[in-house]
Amino acid sequence: MSAVSAEANLLALGIELPEPPRALASYVPLQRVGELLYTSGVIPVFNGEVRFKGVVGADVSVKDGGRAAELCALNIISLIRSYTGSLDEVEQFIQLSGFVRSAQGFDEQPRVMNGASDLIFKIFGERGRHTRQALGTNELPLGVAVEISAIVRLKT
Amino acid sequence: MSAVSAEANLLALGIELPEPPRALASYVPLQRVGELLYTSGVIPVFNGEVRFKGVVGADVSVKDGGRAAELCALNIISLIRSYTGSLDEVEQFIQLSGFVRSAQGFDEQPRVMNGASDLIFKIFGERGRHTRQALGTNELPLGVAVEISAIVRLKT
Amino acid sequence: MSAVSAEANLLALGIELPEPPRALASYVPLQRVGELLYTSGVIPVFNGEVRFKGVVGADVSVKDGGRAAELCALNIISLIRSYTGSLDEVEQFIQLSGFVRSAQGFDEQPRVMNGASDLIFKIFGERGRHTRQALGTNELPLGVAVEISAIVRLKT
Repeated sequence: MSAVSAEANLLALGIELPEPPRALASYVPLQRVGELLYTSGVIPVFNGEVRFKGVVGADVSVKDGGRAAELCALNIISLIRSYTGSLDEVEQFIQLSGFVRSAQGFDEQPRVMNGASDLIFKIFGERGRHTRQALGTNELPLGVAVEISAIVRLKT
Repeated sequence: MSAVSAEANLLALGIELPEPPRALASYVPLQRVGELLYTSGVIPVFNGEVRFKGVVGADVSVKDGGRAAELCALNIISLIRSYTGSLDEVEQFIQLSGFVRSAQGFDEQPRVMNGASDLIFKIFGERGRHTRQALGTNELPLGVAVEISAIVRLKT
Repeated sequence: MSAVSAEANLLALGIELPEPPRALASYVPLQRVGELLYTSGVIPVFNGEVRFKGVVGADVSVKDGGRAAELCALNIISLIRSYTGSLDEVEQFIQLSGFVRSAQGFDEQPRVMNGASDLIFKIFGERGRHTRQALGTNELPLGVAVEISAIVRLKT
């Protein structure tokens, strides 16, 4: 898959990226160390509008939880592009840490996180294959259903 | 402790490693960046059989929570060996991130995580000393009691 | 802000650092990999005395949650100084991972985490700007309200 262009895939898939999340306080959305980019935890926001509030397994379905995870991934991708100028600067996704706000007894966090993982794989191919933490939590900022952060390796 | 062999310790302790967890979707169990190996979050599975479901402090005892953490550690060790061929390729464990599914008011996540930390120290000696996050959570994938991920530095 | 000295800021702000947290078991409070320092998760302890127990949004106010996060940050800073000898060895804070023990419906984890982020920015200036995960959790070790870990880059 060495010929895959993430930018070309994004175009072919007709995906519109949200504006990258902004720094809101004394922290930043991205930090680079050597070849690695660390992102802050991102929530399902589209151009400033918070979406997918609620608890997966209660008032948010698994399907909508997956869409929330997908929107988090789009925000991560948008952050990366705002920093690098092109998604084709990504050498490899290293890790996604995902937290799913979970109703009592809800245990399908991996299915929810597939919304993010599958989208990243569609866009980046093998370069999108990452390690993953799929975790539950009782509460998240602004009452959203999913929060995800990423570590990505850039080309040198 | 420079003469310690993790492989020899494993043998001496009579520990049987589980098969390494497989990739289940568009993510992978391990990613390498330079000298570092990142693992996905692993759960207490032995050769495909999920063990230690439940909530620590409710239907899972602290002792069994510790065994669940130990089994997570064995899966992490198995993953490392499947990648490196030998545990003696490990230079240093850097970090364990552990999530313990916790009943209301349960605050002994560190004792549960000692199941993983102590086992790794037994096998790897000083090379096994890691930083650690011991955290509570309300829910985890497949209803298990513990999920742990690791960052490990390999010899160069 | 290249002329900022974190040590001078600490003095000017009149901040007293707690003793650095000690290793309690088969893990360590800090690990270095190349230029990076990873810390264990730290809780709001001052010289061995655990402070700010409880649940934010229930028996702990947002303001006190912020103080708990600030105390976690002081412990992280104390750990770094115990290792480097001087805070001026810090090149850049890379990431804070913060977990806020949250009452049902509490969604202001970012405000709580600002207690840590703002303090680090006051002391380290631009070198203190980090990526951040602000997450909720139901339970934490010893019943504390906040747990935070950090990744910091040292000067070479």
